[in-house]
Amino acid sequence: MNLVIAGTIGLDDIKTPFGEVKGVLGGSGTYAACAASYFTKPGLVSIAGADLPKEARDILNSRQVDLGGVKFTDKTFHWSGSYEFDMNEAKTLLTELNALLEFDAEVPELYRQAEFLFLANIDPVHQAKVLSQMKSKPFVVIDTMNYWIESKKSDLLAVMKKADLAVINEGEARQLFGTPNLIKAGRLMLEQGLQYAVIKKGEHGALLFSYDGFFSAPGYPLEEVKDPTGAGDSFAGGLIGYLAKTKDTSEANIRKAVVYGSAIASCCAEDFSLNYLKQTKLDDINARFEVFKQIRQF
Amino acid sequence: MNLVIAGTIGLDDIKTPFGEVKGVLGGSGTYAACAASYFTKPGLVSIAGADLPKEARDILNSRQVDLGGVKFTDKTFHWSGSYEFDMNEAKTLLTELNALLEFDAEVPELYRQAEFLFLANIDPVHQAKVLSQMKSKPFVVIDTMNYWIESKKSDLLAVMKKADLAVINEGEARQLFGTPNLIKAGRLMLEQGLQYAVIKKGEHGALLFSYDGFFSAPGYPLEEVKDPTGAGDSFAGGLIGYLAKTKDTSEANIRKAVVYGSAIASCCAEDFSLNYLKQTKLDDINARFEVFKQIRQF
Repeated sequence: MNLVIAGTIGLDDIKTPFGEVKGVLGGSGTYAACAASYFTKPGLVSIAGADLPKEARDILNSRQVDLGGVKFTDKTFHWSGSYEFDMNEAKTLLTELNALLEFDAEVPELYRQAEFLFLANIDPVHQAKVLSQMKSKPFVVIDTMNYWIESKKSDLLAVMKKADLAVINEGEARQLFGTPNLIKAGRLMLEQGLQYAVIKKGEHGALLFSYDGFFSAPGYPLEEVKDPTGAGDSFAGGLIGYLAKTKDTSEANIRKAVVYGSAIASCCAEDFSLNYLKQTKLDDINARFEVFKQIRQF
Repeated sequence: MNLVIAGTIGLDDIKTPFGEVKGVLGGSGTYAACAASYFTKPGLVSIAGADLPKEARDILNSRQVDLGGVKFTDKTFHWSGSYEFDMNEAKTLLTELNALLEFDAEVPELYRQAEFLFLANIDPVHQAKVLSQMKSKPFVVIDTMNYWIESKKSDLLAVMKKADLAVINEGEARQLFGTPNLIKAGRLMLEQGLQYAVIKKGEHGALLFSYDGFFSAPGYPLEEVKDPTGAGDSFAGGLIGYLAKTKDTSEANIRKAVVYGSAIASCCAEDFSLNYLKQTKLDDINARFEVFKQIRQF
């Protein structure tokens, strides 16, 4: 076990201008672990309910995601959201925490020596608890969302300081650091004590900041985005999955990891829920990696 | 004379969160011609008033912009605008057309053999008139703005069909082609009969579409944007200036031209009006071109 991912498992209802699905597998931990599974066999720390359908478990099992760190209780976390015409931001219609209320963020003994840890979007108090149980000194990637920035900013900043790389989206970066300028926000992120900061910009790609470098990854040219849910989680999961496989956290390799993360996120956004997993092989992701090279050449 | 630029000359009042200026040189033709002047000596087709201050003429003369195509009448076109905190879009406070009401879009005999023509943001009827007077078959770049999309869409699409490369910004592309997806909008732009389509995305860079290629140029990492006025005009002016210098309209060279345009636009946005011209040499632009290479490498 060289990669541990802590995040949510959820059942989602999603409506976009391109269709509607109900009770499909979702959650930050799920999306991230499935993306990382293209490069390694991650262990997932999470909680779900007995109501999690067999098909949902089958998806995780088929990707060889280790579920030894997943507790099962009564009812799975449930999120319902919709996207408008511009597909930029999800409007949350309903959140039922259910199992998440009982989450104790316990990391199995077997996971505690992992070299890579991804603290996906969950309560920063749980992120800190997971991190504190690691016996190795893992390379830590952390993600979050506007909800935690608004409700638990100091907890979030405290755990972010202990991470090596933080991933947040454009709007969250502006919100967290009080500036409309993303370059300034990226520098302020680094000053939290991080080695790397990544700002996700959806269709516009991603920015990577380090103390002596800056990288701008393009967005993958998608003519059709059916459902952006989980694309950000998939980006970060793909990124850390690639790092866990290559065991190289140099800036040059992080740049590659950002592009692999972008490639997987673009596949994810082309279909609802985790449907992309069915038709997406590692070869397809490598092909997108090559497209990323071509579209930025001059 | 191998490059002709048709556009406005204006006197602007601009207010941004970083300061305020009044009666400064502006206009789409001015910004574009000054940007192009890093690569060639453009001729400007425009109209201004006798009230244009000596300092304004000095700026154009110092950049060796040929003013043989500029008529002088009573009062210069006057625009007043402000930018909010996010600096994304100008709010127009006042527009006094003045001299523009008398603009006859006449191209001097000496200009009519130019190989490159930039129809900067002016009334599409004037753009068409300028184009019809050319005796060469120039490579034509065209720009516009939301105002013309709303008020003269059919005139605009008619002249766009006769151009080789169209440059519009993100919001205008979405508006003109009725889709939130920029990749789709770019393809629809090409279908107007263009050889190349460019979508400007401000801080997020620019996209270049051709029938068998796609290029994504990053935004230059600016920590401070003081005044975005004219950055789009400077981008297009720099782009066509580079083409006019190199006389190469292959996709590979258009990619370079897009990056040079981005480099000049980024210099422009760092100060008010055309103040960047004072401290920006061709070496500085070449240095930014190199930065664009580094920030895209993986």
